[in-house]
Amino acid sequence: MATADISKSSPALKDELDIVIPTIRNLDFLEMWRPFFQPYHLIIVQDGDPSKTIKVPEGFDYELYNRNDINKILGPKASCISFKDSACRCFGYMVSKKKYIFTIDDDCFVAKDPTGKEINALEQHIKNLLTPSTPFFFNTLYDPYREGADFVRGYPFSLREGAPTAVSHGLWLNIPDYDAPTQLVKPRERNTRFVDAVMTIPKGTLFPMCGMNLAFDRELIGPAMYFGLMGDGQPIGRYDDMWAGWCTKVICDHLGLGIKTGLPYIWHSKASNPFVNLKKEYKGIYWQEELIPFFQSATLSKDADTVQKCYLELSKQVKAKLGKVDEYFSKLADAMVTWIEAWDELNPTSGVLIGVPNGAAK
Amino acid sequence: MATADISKSSPALKDELDIVIPTIRNLDFLEMWRPFFQPYHLIIVQDGDPSKTIKVPEGFDYELYNRNDINKILGPKASCISFKDSACRCFGYMVSKKKYIFTIDDDCFVAKDPTGKEINALEQHIKNLLTPSTPFFFNTLYDPYREGADFVRGYPFSLREGAPTAVSHGLWLNIPDYDAPTQLVKPRERNTRFVDAVMTIPKGTLFPMCGMNLAFDRELIGPAMYFGLMGDGQPIGRYDDMWAGWCTKVICDHLGLGIKTGLPYIWHSKASNPFVNLKKEYKGIYWQEELIPFFQSATLSKDADTVQKCYLELSKQVKAKLGKVDEYFSKLADAMVTWIEAWDELNPTSGVLIGVPNGAAK
Repeated sequence: MATADISKSSPALKDELDIVIPTIRNLDFLEMWRPFFQPYHLIIVQDGDPSKTIKVPEGFDYELYNRNDINKILGPKASCISFKDSACRCFGYMVSKKKYIFTIDDDCFVAKDPTGKEINALEQHIKNLLTPSTPFFFNTLYDPYREGADFVRGYPFSLREGAPTAVSHGLWLNIPDYDAPTQLVKPRERNTRFVDAVMTIPKGTLFPMCGMNLAFDRELIGPAMYFGLMGDGQPIGRYDDMWAGWCTKVICDHLGLGIKTGLPYIWHSKASNPFVNLKKEYKGIYWQEELIPFFQSATLSKDADTVQKCYLELSKQVKAKLGKVDEYFSKLADAMVTWIEAWDELNPTSGVLIGVPNGAAK
Repeated sequence: MATADISKSSPALKDELDIVIPTIRNLDFLEMWRPFFQPYHLIIVQDGDPSKTIKVPEGFDYELYNRNDINKILGPKASCISFKDSACRCFGYMVSKKKYIFTIDDDCFVAKDPTGKEINALEQHIKNLLTPSTPFFFNTLYDPYREGADFVRGYPFSLREGAPTAVSHGLWLNIPDYDAPTQLVKPRERNTRFVDAVMTIPKGTLFPMCGMNLAFDRELIGPAMYFGLMGDGQPIGRYDDMWAGWCTKVICDHLGLGIKTGLPYIWHSKASNPFVNLKKEYKGIYWQEELIPFFQSATLSKDADTVQKCYLELSKQVKAKLGKVDEYFSKLADAMVTWIEAWDELNPTSGVLIGVPNGAAK
């Protein structure tokens, strides 16, 4: 299959993609990314104390929002944006006017492939997003749209057009994205295995979406990328990206969109404190045992033909079914509605009718 | 997680695994495999003219069955075993008395990993089979039971025990397993990408299972590994392993068993003739468009708590639903029943109650 034509000379999607970075510190990490990121526009969401000044290296084109800006822009609806948690990054998705988003954490550096070459993570995400996904049948040679690969014998021909790709989920070398219990049990484990693969997460299968190194098509799936209520005043943390991933997967499955995972790798430099993490996670760890069956069995109606409508349907189900688990989920369900209202206010022409593909809805 | 303890000094599962090889020629290819295969017992199923003598290199422990042997052992039930097609290999699964089977084609050689080291394919299959699978939730760092890997943040703890692994599906470097149309369109494509991963095919997702480099737990799933009616007197070929794979996947999903794919690679030396392949495949290519929806929606009853019972239920559904597509499928459905009868005759103590796990049945 032909792969997307991504010219080396002019950066792909230069005017169609924003890089969203949540941070509490000076963005020195951008120095290492300069060759890859400098042509793009950055949206920096400053987490925590708004009086602090965040330094951005010279030569980058950026806009920066602190909590005061978020409050000013969203007014009372700012309540849906987390404070003192990197979940605040989703505000950047909302104010972007571009078709694509790449989001990365400020402790993520450029990784090297096994030949020692620096990996342009953004370029790989763009390749992933611009080629279709294969959610309806598994291809054993991984992404059939990559150069040197194709669909194997036995892959139905009617499914070889694939589905539009909504999300590209990248991975991490060095510090793996483990939960606190695993961090505590395996303090020295490092991810050194470079797996040269991109694949589609099959329809009907949930996965743990990590927000550290993530790209998506804002027009296709943006309103589902809400990172929930975490951090200051909330009973859990570190489930922001997971929550977004589960909602997004259910909606992508319903709308016939694909999610890819695998390449690109970034170099994750520093493990967060496992004791602090445990405190943030412990409620999530047991709530999750009820969340997963909930998302596994969630179905959306035929009428839900835009991401917004899907998301609002899901918020109702969260309130009805997870509200019983803890009152936090009632509050979260309300915040999901507020998020969509705020999204639509800032993106008045959004809410594109995607339509539910024949037979693709559960 | 701890990985299976496979000592380097004594070959793993030496007395518990048979290597099944279907062939029409002298088995010179075994010379290259000698360091890895010699400790194991081989079951050679001679395809085609039984008067021909197949030479096996010195020093291998083997039994060989030609068509006359098959007819003698199975009597009228021999009709379920294909003739003049490598689908006959499944006879070897039936006569084996071991717990595990590894099957390989005689045009498959030892591949090298990126460091130049020869890959012991069988050892990797054994690792895959002796560690659990994760069919109920996707782990983004691939097989969590491999050394240096684990479950990532957001993976439900209740699912970390995994499921018993029934099948290990290996891949191919050099000549990829393409269908005739793809072979014709891309005559020069070679698979050069070594993907250092093992993963579980999620529950509810079908995949194209290739019989070239395949291992399975005969006690857990053996009776489902029927390679159908292909070759002499049949309207299609090259769908034997696919058929076995779709039946097996539906039954594994029902019984809560896992199927892994990825490592190990073998070196597939020679592309088969695409014109001959097209003739064998063309009916399969369009029948498949009805087979896939059939298998995707197939459900088995709670009473189907052994592989045999599952397989007989499936055979009834094949007759009822696919018999309308072509009379070939009525014949195939009958052969599926004959296969189970023959299996039970040769394996009187088989038919272990696996039981349908709570919530695992569709």
